[in-house]
Amino acid sequence: MRWKCVCAYDGTDYAGWQSQVTGRAIQDVIEQALGEILGHKTRIHGSGRTDAGVHAKGQVFHFDDTWKHGGEALRKAFATALPSDVQILEVKKARSSFHARISAQGKRYVYRAFEGRALPMEARCRTSLHGSRLDLDAMRMAARSLIGQHDFTSFGASRGYPCDDDPVKNLWCLNVTRSGRRLGVTVEGSGFLYKMVRSLCGALFDVGRGRLKVSQVQEILKSCERTALVVTAPPQGLCLEKVFYRRRLS
Amino acid sequence: MRWKCVCAYDGTDYAGWQSQVTGRAIQDVIEQALGEILGHKTRIHGSGRTDAGVHAKGQVFHFDDTWKHGGEALRKAFATALPSDVQILEVKKARSSFHARISAQGKRYVYRAFEGRALPMEARCRTSLHGSRLDLDAMRMAARSLIGQHDFTSFGASRGYPCDDDPVKNLWCLNVTRSGRRLGVTVEGSGFLYKMVRSLCGALFDVGRGRLKVSQVQEILKSCERTALVVTAPPQGLCLEKVFYRRRLS
Repeated sequence: MRWKCVCAYDGTDYAGWQSQVTGRAIQDVIEQALGEILGHKTRIHGSGRTDAGVHAKGQVFHFDDTWKHGGEALRKAFATALPSDVQILEVKKARSSFHARISAQGKRYVYRAFEGRALPMEARCRTSLHGSRLDLDAMRMAARSLIGQHDFTSFGASRGYPCDDDPVKNLWCLNVTRSGRRLGVTVEGSGFLYKMVRSLCGALFDVGRGRLKVSQVQEILKSCERTALVVTAPPQGLCLEKVFYRRRLS
Repeated sequence: MRWKCVCAYDGTDYAGWQSQVTGRAIQDVIEQALGEILGHKTRIHGSGRTDAGVHAKGQVFHFDDTWKHGGEALRKAFATALPSDVQILEVKKARSSFHARISAQGKRYVYRAFEGRALPMEARCRTSLHGSRLDLDAMRMAARSLIGQHDFTSFGASRGYPCDDDPVKNLWCLNVTRSGRRLGVTVEGSGFLYKMVRSLCGALFDVGRGRLKVSQVQEILKSCERTALVVTAPPQGLCLEKVFYRRRLS
């Protein structure tokens, strides 16, 4: 039987989603808890990786097991077995054709920042942006020019994972909001290259600071080559909010 | 020369504001940083204590020193010397008659809670309230009956600090708000007994759960005796937001 799980985590103290040679990964912690609950080792399959320090409110993974006590009992068992910074929000039976990564139709990320130094209670989940206030109009103009289907190689890591496939992705939302000194960048798309979301946000922040022009962002995108002009924004501001699936699959 | 400082902290990893025999206190950490900056030991005086695990966005303290480089330079020096969970927001010269505790006219606290289990990113600053949704109308009725000048002995700790003075306090705001599953209780008053804010919130939550009637809260207040009916809400939801002073003093 296939189980689909939605989970949330504070990524601050983790080496990212996927098992690493060094450091504790979210996946390891969940697999360890699941092993304690089921009484045997079970592999889980995430919708994709999140980097060290990146958070999630809606990461999705699946696993197969003959567990007979229903999803809600499993969710409660997870609550006891997991540390407080990793939380299973939902456990549901899925069709055997459901695959957390392959079935994903898209993802929503939100990048949170603070103009100035973030308060201590927010600093784990919000990046401090020092210097003068950002030019939101320019950021929004640059964002509009990035929306759509493009080859995003310029915003991928200079060395992607070996599994990084097609660099052509469909970015259908890149929206910048401000409330007081709090900034939010909402990013939605069909898929993302390694470090792509943080690179898009880094470029937008530099546009806001006047370090990059909107026209430069357009040229960078067209060049299909990662350059030092694009700075990857720090991980702590990023959160995977939701993974989208076709309803019939999950 | 007297200096007035406003500070913010994530109290999760601290034994509270005031120096303790065991555990690290916020005051100790600030005094240590100040010692490094000034080159000699200096005592700071807070507006009041906050308990272990309680946060602040607007705690105020003062100290005396002949520092000659201005408040902004001192604030920047603090930013380098302090750990990331303690932050000095403002440093200003004050009149010699200003005293962070004695000059305080009142304080504002906010208690943050979540109906259900708080997400990992919020759990440090928001209390999880399990069980069914709270009855906000009842909570607001109870809150209204607590506003005003009263002897709050019933909501103080059963054994107060020796310095706990007059149990008669003026509570001028006790307001409950809800946004989705997030609850906020704003508490403003002239002064507070030890554990009074958390006890008021604990009683309101029990009214919301139907464990206490509004009429019982009124009787408890009148009895001027702390009983087991009043449960102190956990510390992590509480934040000292602001200390009020007369303008001419600070």
